[in-house]
This record gives sequence, structure tokens and C-alpha cells, in this order.
Amino acid sequence: MRPESLGVIGLGALGGSIAWRAAQAGVPRIIGYSPVPAEAVAALKAGAITEIADRPDRAVGPADLVVLAAPPGATLNLLRDLRGQLQARPVLCTDVTSVKRPIMDLAEHLALTERFAGSHPLAGTHESGFDAARPSRLDGALVYVTPLPNGERAAREIADFWAGVCGASPVLCNAAEHDRVVAWTSHLPQAVASALAGALRRAGPKGVTYGPGARDTTRLAASNPALWHDVLLLNREALLEGLDAMEGELGRLRRALNTGNGDELLAWLEAARTWRRQVDS
Amino acid sequence: MRPESLGVIGLGALGGSIAWRAAQAGVPRIIGYSPVPAEAVAALKAGAITEIADRPDRAVGPADLVVLAAPPGATLNLLRDLRGQLQARPVLCTDVTSVKRPIMDLAEHLALTERFAGSHPLAGTHESGFDAARPSRLDGALVYVTPLPNGERAAREIADFWAGVCGASPVLCNAAEHDRVVAWTSHLPQAVASALAGALRRAGPKGVTYGPGARDTTRLAASNPALWHDVLLLNREALLEGLDAMEGELGRLRRALNTGNGDELLAWLEAARTWRRQVDS
Repeated sequence: MRPESLGVIGLGALGGSIAWRAAQAGVPRIIGYSPVPAEAVAALKAGAITEIADRPDRAVGPADLVVLAAPPGATLNLLRDLRGQLQARPVLCTDVTSVKRPIMDLAEHLALTERFAGSHPLAGTHESGFDAARPSRLDGALVYVTPLPNGERAAREIADFWAGVCGASPVLCNAAEHDRVVAWTSHLPQAVASALAGALRRAGPKGVTYGPGARDTTRLAASNPALWHDVLLLNREALLEGLDAMEGELGRLRRALNTGNGDELLAWLEAARTWRRQVDS
Repeated sequence: MRPESLGVIGLGALGGSIAWRAAQAGVPRIIGYSPVPAEAVAALKAGAITEIADRPDRAVGPADLVVLAAPPGATLNLLRDLRGQLQARPVLCTDVTSVKRPIMDLAEHLALTERFAGSHPLAGTHESGFDAARPSRLDGALVYVTPLPNGERAAREIADFWAGVCGASPVLCNAAEHDRVVAWTSHLPQAVASALAGALRRAGPKGVTYGPGARDTTRLAASNPALWHDVLLLNREALLEGLDAMEGELGRLRRALNTGNGDELLAWLEAARTWRRQVDS
């Protein structure tokens, strides 16, 4: 679909980028809401939106398509609050959170089958706020789109928006399988980066210089805590499996160091290297 | 010092870069040895060295300064093997490993006070081999230089080589303190990146796409296993303290997830973010 009027609720790195890209693609009316009024003003000044809504429901009112670009917990609240409006007239709605099952379960419970499909664009950044919005952020980005049961028509329309308006690459997929995969590919790396940053903060030497290796390994720790609080809690079962695996690997390293087992240590490093090189190939 | 004749033993990412930079700085004679003959040929073709030595001792023979650019274990062996040559005539020697105390202890034991100071250039990369050598790799790089007891004169000469010939920024420091700091700033991030790669390899989903977050967090896992095998074993006491701290942080996350304690989780994420942002500032 190509909306005449797009509502974007949340104008941070992702919501701001979606609005901005749609503006550049010629969507005539883009109504933006942000809980931080200054972000909405910045988005208007940049030409990412054409008007500011002072309440979330006012961004839904005139829209053909509404994008909820908030952390998962806020997205769940928005779905509940906006349900009546979403049912009242023909309007489609999607979100952009990286945990899909809780969102889809609620949308199904709210009987939004004709209206809603979930989305998860792989276009995140550790930066946050409209300052981090870029119209190019969606270019070629993989976007997972998760249909509700019997909601394939809404999902196809929303996938069409990602491809035709935002220049992204949508792929339809099952919400539960999606959540299991991102627990490993995204949520576990986030947790590990924050844990390493926490360890260095709490027990490491003070006032020292960190090189590119330590910086890259901890980069994700600079991500938005409110967002990741929701994601990690909502996907905690799958993430706990990832933490088990991580602790298992640290245990292997500890044993090799404690026993001075060089062969085991070398094999451990080599297996990790082989895997990592395949990721880039 | 500005050598007339430089011996470089090991022509990988770091040794190759040092030789190449010295060649560009006008050092007339640069004798290179590599245990992999093709690397020495590549270095000669690139103009990084002026001649190939077919044995390590033949790179020492005519040199005013010898740089041992090998993993720590091989560096310890080289020091033992080359001791007689290093004592026989006025020649200075340094190494480039990131664990200094075992190297310095051996050099002291071998009575190399007049000849040797340790070095650790912060110019590493996860890439390896002469392919990863660049004459610019040393530009402005911080280089820790560790003197032997009463070996300050040799250390000053070697620091002068790093600054005057290689364009790097040398800082003299104590070997034991150096090792404790790099255990946290470099060796722990390496261990964590390899552990995360290992966890994803062993227990993660197959055939999936990894985004920039997971790629950055695991980048160091692609580093040279033979090098890191030596480093992690030689600095294991300090590294084990780092692993304790890392496991403590993962345990905090696990408890917050298990109990659904959102406040604790948010505080944990926020503390890590605050720390990480300061690293960049």
C-alpha cells in the first residue's frame, strides 16, 4: 500500500527514519507524535513529518496507515489504547519492535486481524532519538513482517509499504520462530555487550584507554535502556537459553586457563574464529 | 635511535607494518624473517624489507635493532635462542607482545639489561599475516615500552625508534601494571567475543543473518588463535579476575530476568550505557 496519510507514533531513530523516508517518497501527509515534544519539532523542521499530533490518537485519526515506533511495552499500551480507533474505520497498523510474539498475542486478543501485522526492521542503532533518524536508514534493510492468524492480507499490504515506500526488503515470517532467532542473533549480543561494559565499569581499572577491540565489543551497551528493558524481559525464555550457552563457553575458557590446557584453549579459539569468519563470508 | 640495519622477525600484521614503515622512513637495510616463506617474499615485493633471512638468527646478525614480532610463546623461545647473539655485539632488541611480565622476567633472567626493552603497540587487528600489514598502522599508535631493572637506557633508545622512525607515541611503563590493565581493556574483551562466537556456533540457530550489532560484538573472535592462546595463558591470573566480573554481570542479568525485576534490569542497562558513553567521550 501507498498511504495518502501516514501516522507515526514515536519519532526516534527508527520512527523518525520511517517518516522521513516516506516524506521523501512523496507520501503527502505524515502526522507525527512523540512523547518528547522537541523531537516532534525537530522532525517537522527536518521535513520528516508534515504535521505534529499532540496525542497518539490524533496521529491515528486521519491516517491510512499507522506505524507504532515505540519500545515494546509502550507498543502494547498503544495497541490497547488505540484499539477502538483502529476498529472504527479502514486503517492499517504495524509496529517495529524486535519481540513479536507478545505484540501479536495482544493484537489477536484485541481482534485486530483485519488491521494489524507486526514488523521488525533490521535497521536499529545504538544511537537514539530523532538525531539518529536518517531517511536512508531503511534502504535495503531486511524487515520481518509477522501476520496474525488469517491476517495475511494486512501483512501483505504492510510488506508492500516497506518495499514500495521505504525501499526496504520485507520477509513474512512466523512470530514465535522470529523471536527465537532474534534472541540469539540480536538479544544475546546486546546482553553480552552490556554485561562486558558492566564488568569493566564495576571491576576494571579506572582512567585507562580502550582500543577499537573493546569499543566494538561493548558498542551495543550504549543502546536505549528503556527499549532493551522491554525486549529482554519479553523475550526472556529464549534469552535465558542464550545466557546458558554463553556461561557454558566462559566455563570452558575458565577450565582451560585453570588447568593450563593449551590444546583445549587453542581448539576453543579456533572454533570461534572459524564460525566468525563464516559470518562475514 | 635510528637503525642503519633493522632485523624484523615475524612479518605479520604488526611486524610487516613496522618493517614497511621503517622502509618508508628511510632505514637503509631491513632484514626480515618469517616462518612462512611466502610472507617474507610478499614483504620483499611490497618493499617492506630489503632482504630475506632464512633463519631468525640471520636477521639478528647485521642489525642495530631487532624487533621480535611473534606470538608471546615464540617470542620467549626467540629470546632464549638469540641470547648469545644479542650479547656478542652492540644490538638492541624489543618485542611487540601484549603480555609483558613473562617476557621481561625471562629477559632479566637472560641478563639482557643492556640490550632489551619490551614494547606493546596498540595497533593490533583481528586480521593476520602480511596481507594485513600497512605502513600507516603505527601512525600515532600508543606504544607501551617496559624497561628492565636498570634498563632505562635501552628503553629510551627503543622508545625513540617508535617515535622517530615509526611515527608512534611511546609511553614507558611498568610491566606488571601494564599486564593488569590490558587484561581488562584487551584480553577480557577478546575472551568475551570468542565466548559469544562459541555460544552462537554451538547452540544458536543455523543459516541465519547476523546484523552489525552481533558482528561488532564478535569481531575479535576472528583474531589469530595461536597469538591469543599464548596471551590468555600467560596473563591468566588477571584474566580470571575479569572472567569472575563478567560472570557476575551475567548472573545479575539472569536474576533480573528470572524474577521479572524490571527496575533492576533497567538500572543494570543504564549503568552499562553510562559507562560506555564515557568511553567515547
